[in-house]
Amino acid sequence: MKFSYISHLHCPKCREKYEFNIIQQLCACGSPLLVDYDLQELKKRWGPAALAGRSNDLWRYHELLPVTDPDNIVTLGEGMTPLLRMDRLGAAMGIGQLWMKDEGVIPTGSFKARGAAVGVSKAKELAIQELAMPTNGNAGAAWSLYAARAGIRATIVMPVGAPEITRNECAISGANLYLVNGLISDAGQIVGQAVKEHGLFDASTLKEPYRIEGKKTMGLEIVEQLQWKVPDVILYPTGGGVGLIGIYKALKELIELGWIEDKLPRLVAVQAAGCAPIVKAWEEGKSVSEFWENSATAAFGINVPKALGDFLVLEAVYESGGCAVAIDDDTLLKELGTIASLEGAFVCPEGAATFAAARQLREGGWIKEGETVIALNTGSGIKYPETVNVQVPVLEPGARLTRR
Amino acid sequence: MKFSYISHLHCPKCREKYEFNIIQQLCACGSPLLVDYDLQELKKRWGPAALAGRSNDLWRYHELLPVTDPDNIVTLGEGMTPLLRMDRLGAAMGIGQLWMKDEGVIPTGSFKARGAAVGVSKAKELAIQELAMPTNGNAGAAWSLYAARAGIRATIVMPVGAPEITRNECAISGANLYLVNGLISDAGQIVGQAVKEHGLFDASTLKEPYRIEGKKTMGLEIVEQLQWKVPDVILYPTGGGVGLIGIYKALKELIELGWIEDKLPRLVAVQAAGCAPIVKAWEEGKSVSEFWENSATAAFGINVPKALGDFLVLEAVYESGGCAVAIDDDTLLKELGTIASLEGAFVCPEGAATFAAARQLREGGWIKEGETVIALNTGSGIKYPETVNVQVPVLEPGARLTRR
Repeated sequence: MKFSYISHLHCPKCREKYEFNIIQQLCACGSPLLVDYDLQELKKRWGPAALAGRSNDLWRYHELLPVTDPDNIVTLGEGMTPLLRMDRLGAAMGIGQLWMKDEGVIPTGSFKARGAAVGVSKAKELAIQELAMPTNGNAGAAWSLYAARAGIRATIVMPVGAPEITRNECAISGANLYLVNGLISDAGQIVGQAVKEHGLFDASTLKEPYRIEGKKTMGLEIVEQLQWKVPDVILYPTGGGVGLIGIYKALKELIELGWIEDKLPRLVAVQAAGCAPIVKAWEEGKSVSEFWENSATAAFGINVPKALGDFLVLEAVYESGGCAVAIDDDTLLKELGTIASLEGAFVCPEGAATFAAARQLREGGWIKEGETVIALNTGSGIKYPETVNVQVPVLEPGARLTRR
Repeated sequence: MKFSYISHLHCPKCREKYEFNIIQQLCACGSPLLVDYDLQELKKRWGPAALAGRSNDLWRYHELLPVTDPDNIVTLGEGMTPLLRMDRLGAAMGIGQLWMKDEGVIPTGSFKARGAAVGVSKAKELAIQELAMPTNGNAGAAWSLYAARAGIRATIVMPVGAPEITRNECAISGANLYLVNGLISDAGQIVGQAVKEHGLFDASTLKEPYRIEGKKTMGLEIVEQLQWKVPDVILYPTGGGVGLIGIYKALKELIELGWIEDKLPRLVAVQAAGCAPIVKAWEEGKSVSEFWENSATAAFGINVPKALGDFLVLEAVYESGGCAVAIDDDTLLKELGTIASLEGAFVCPEGAATFAAARQLREGGWIKEGETVIALNTGSGIKYPETVNVQVPVLEPGARLTRR
């Protein structure tokens, strides 16, 4: 058995193939590259029973990950996050089988840890010394910390409006951190220039091929946690959309391996009403999105006006029979409170949006009562304290409480 | 097989016994109560092999936990947190086998989730409708959220100086939250009065017997993750000290079950120099501590001037051949940065104190080079953003990065 069954990279646009054992960024045609594995060979040698007794993190799926030498793994124990029943919330929505995949319970407090763990590990394997990336906060935090663990230098540029705690994570790791008076697209432009001038590795979303492989493990885990049953619906908060592309890729690989039936969950791209380019494209039946002008939302992680992988997100939505839904900030912030008070889960605004979308889709009949529905919470609410309005009485020592 | 082998409660001071199937608080003599299990019966029926394939959370040890009916379990997926190699930091300290048990990777972002999960589950089993507690922040946050999930009302009183994010967690859960201009001891006095006047269940540290059973699972997990080998040293940031008491209790139970050799790790109670009553008592060879006047430290979770279970903490330290160490704030905050830049882990100030203590104990020769040393990080650094000094350049769109 090999540790990884990676075979090559390919371009989903022009179908060009690339080697995996040298540094690759985008395809010559400008498209992101995807990773291929020798699934036919792997199918002969590997089954779900092989996972028993393996480490309880995303590296349990190492055959389907791109790192070829286990010594290059850079891990903080990421993955196998809880898949939780949300019975009280589900009952309130009329959904009999509502679950949350809780990516708040992961190093760095967001699902970005998955992409960083696999991306940084592969960067280490390729002997990369220094990387750079733009970020809406969480990805930069995760890549900074994993890069520090790997001994790789990181340069991070994020909008001034990104969640402040993510600045602290970058700073404490020793990364070169910059803020920009603008959006992630402005940060990306600055990084692009620096990459050209200083020869850094560009770790921007989808400009390196391995982050998606880390995100893919969310899909692997969901079906493993459901005993290799495919759920009916997965709702995903969509900014760059890498997780949704990854889940789609993971499930297609498992179908090819014969580990699950030949059925995809209906994938729902959830966006904020203030930044909904994928929703607009889906409503218009298009295969790519347009830049969303003047985007704004409290769900900062999905404030991405134009995603490089938009065509892959839309393909996943169309191919799976899914849909795309926009949620306004008031609705998602109200849902955030409902989730905490009914289920004890303090989710991030992006995660709250997926539950609000589930509620709307159930009301509209698109989700049926008995269906198994997975809402992805991409991060911990504690990274977004400003979403909670706290009015607390202050007592003096010796005060007596009256009942409220 | 029974789901739980709980047999009764006992008082470690006066040895009185109590039933477990009715609500209990302190012993009539004022001491905390501890939980006993029918270990002789359990030993005949249960071994480590039984854990294979079990849920990857603390409920995998349900035979050694107090909840008798699985339907009463209130879970957010807590437990089996990463045990991580800290090779670069260990090398810098001259410790060959340095590990971190990372309790930042858990619901609510701190180890308090363990006590809350087990405490709230048992409260549900005992049909408790409403609980109250004082807190330095993290425990109140955890109990609020788990209580919300259980449908139990919570009243929480915390010092105004407690980490602000923990207020948000309490508030979003719908708990009755109050701040007090004082310390946790002032909060405790207010809660005590409210408990008397309004008949609430008192969930204060060690005033209910089950939180410690949740904390105990840290000890179970550490030795399971080390393949049932006992480490040489465990360093624990000690405020109320419940986790240290719990780890000590867990290991003694495992010795009695025959799952580990008859050897305890040397348990180190790490305190802040600004609040070190246990260290003072240990240095003076005493079995109880005195109230620490005018306590103050950046490691807010261990700002506990007098712990109800101090005699149990000191017993664990003495019996295991451990010690007690005080770390000043400057030293622990510097260590926090070192940990992040070398290992990519953003730990809480209390966790940083344990690493600073390991460094000091190695320098002084108390820890030997080849020993296996576990430092407990009790929470995620993202809950304490104020510990990081962030000075970030702000760029305008289109700016060019110069190399730093």
